[in-house]
Amino acid sequence: MKAVCFDGSLTVCEREKPRRKRGEMLIRVAVAGICNTDHEITRGYIPGFSGILGHEFFGYVEEADDAALAGRRVTAEINNACRSCEFCNRGLGRHCGSRSVLGIVGRDGAMAEYVAVPQENVLEIPPAIPDSRALFIEPLAAAMEILEQVEIGKEHSVLLLGDGKLALLIALVMNTTGCDLTVVGKHACKLALLEERGIRTVLLGSFQKGCYDRVIEASGSPSAFDLGLSCIKPRGTFVLKSTYSGGFFFNPSSLVVNEITLVGSRCGRFEDAVQFLEQHAPPLEKMISREYPLEEAIAAFAYSERPDSLKVVLRIG
Amino acid sequence: MKAVCFDGSLTVCEREKPRRKRGEMLIRVAVAGICNTDHEITRGYIPGFSGILGHEFFGYVEEADDAALAGRRVTAEINNACRSCEFCNRGLGRHCGSRSVLGIVGRDGAMAEYVAVPQENVLEIPPAIPDSRALFIEPLAAAMEILEQVEIGKEHSVLLLGDGKLALLIALVMNTTGCDLTVVGKHACKLALLEERGIRTVLLGSFQKGCYDRVIEASGSPSAFDLGLSCIKPRGTFVLKSTYSGGFFFNPSSLVVNEITLVGSRCGRFEDAVQFLEQHAPPLEKMISREYPLEEAIAAFAYSERPDSLKVVLRIG
Repeated sequence: MKAVCFDGSLTVCEREKPRRKRGEMLIRVAVAGICNTDHEITRGYIPGFSGILGHEFFGYVEEADDAALAGRRVTAEINNACRSCEFCNRGLGRHCGSRSVLGIVGRDGAMAEYVAVPQENVLEIPPAIPDSRALFIEPLAAAMEILEQVEIGKEHSVLLLGDGKLALLIALVMNTTGCDLTVVGKHACKLALLEERGIRTVLLGSFQKGCYDRVIEASGSPSAFDLGLSCIKPRGTFVLKSTYSGGFFFNPSSLVVNEITLVGSRCGRFEDAVQFLEQHAPPLEKMISREYPLEEAIAAFAYSERPDSLKVVLRIG
Repeated sequence: MKAVCFDGSLTVCEREKPRRKRGEMLIRVAVAGICNTDHEITRGYIPGFSGILGHEFFGYVEEADDAALAGRRVTAEINNACRSCEFCNRGLGRHCGSRSVLGIVGRDGAMAEYVAVPQENVLEIPPAIPDSRALFIEPLAAAMEILEQVEIGKEHSVLLLGDGKLALLIALVMNTTGCDLTVVGKHACKLALLEERGIRTVLLGSFQKGCYDRVIEASGSPSAFDLGLSCIKPRGTFVLKSTYSGGFFFNPSSLVVNEITLVGSRCGRFEDAVQFLEQHAPPLEKMISREYPLEEAIAAFAYSERPDSLKVVLRIG
């Protein structure tokens, strides 16, 4: 089968079709999205990964222990956990110490004609969710994770830094909480997608410091860390969604003096994202910048790196 | 009156006795303690302060609007707040944006024969609390602040980094929560004070990483920041009590990937500290390394900076 591989460099290559083990499902991949994490892997920021990339996808069940499931439209939770450790027992398999992660840590990903995943990770996509939105379940779950960790509601002023793919999803999620939301970005064309939904946006410039209950940093830019910190009220919460390729100089004294809480936030529950798509029907298809066939993955990755692009997807099957 | 002043250098000088305004109390200071914040001011780490130092103290009411209060043994909350802003209305006057802070920001402190403070800040010390412990109300309140911000109980493993004055108080407080506590320090003589109370201590060396629910950094050493972070379980909480004179290189990616919560923690409620002293009667007098008369404040400050010293106090009246 054809697959997008990384082994020090990015290639489209021929790989053996995976063999499904008992307890796994073999999925025929329909569409896979390119995520910033994929770029980080190809740039060498996430060391140690070699194999097929891809963790945002949906497809159709090709083979399963229960043959009746064949043909179902599904996606899959990306963390393959042990299901027996402290974290798994707390429903936090995405923090299992011995997990592999689809296309990221120790397991081939979904930018291929087929992918095999543990059946417990597979989630059927309800018919009400169109293909053009189903692709966003994984990053939308990451956006929704914030609400599992931090209380955000009508009484909170929230500043969101960033207008990339993840930031826009976070904005759409935050907008349903009733909070007083402001989104700061660099690209008018991306912010326009939020303005259409009645979300207040501002182009990066001067704005008020120290007056937000919650600041969410999802820009991926290290300079946004200090900026975000300076915007929070005393006793407020700083949600950090960005990982940065490098570090930076940091003095946490203002965080101590103002008793700020900094919350690292990563993956979320797929079920929550599916429910959100059903309830709110956000027009995520507008976030798809371009679609490429799998064979043109190199061009797709290059396009995805352009500052003006949003979600770039590979059409596979 | 005699006072310990800082105006670019530390001096014992003669100053006018403060005049009590209506709504204030004039307190005859009995004892004042030297805190790390006082050292930070004298080193120029906290810019802008000039005047009488000192914010840990107790004394006796000399004059008040209500003359019947004269002679009462009291201490006072150090943050002088506006009592009308958002934070004051939430009971968080210690985050009031227009506050002055006794001996730290814009207000003369208590290392003097007399100090005038707003009567709302004054707290009577119950007779059951001996003088030798009453002095610790302010730093003990800062230690207890952690329990106002973070859930800590029987089900939590807690690592505390530090064996200085504040760290020992935190250890005594944590020890009452039933948590599984380990204290890491550099000074066997200081850790011995905790061992006496049945608290597990270890000298800084190799210990297990990534296995604590809560890590509290109270060592004041910037190198402890990364060490502390590496000791926390995924989804755990890192409480930062230390302020550092300088910053350091920081990459928050592990904090995001492991969804760690970092909580800055500073001052606490004096009422909580008083209640703790009444309920638990911790032998804080063992933490007093030396006592000096006010006139020998320069020598007292020098002794207080020795790595093997704990609380150094000025006996004033």
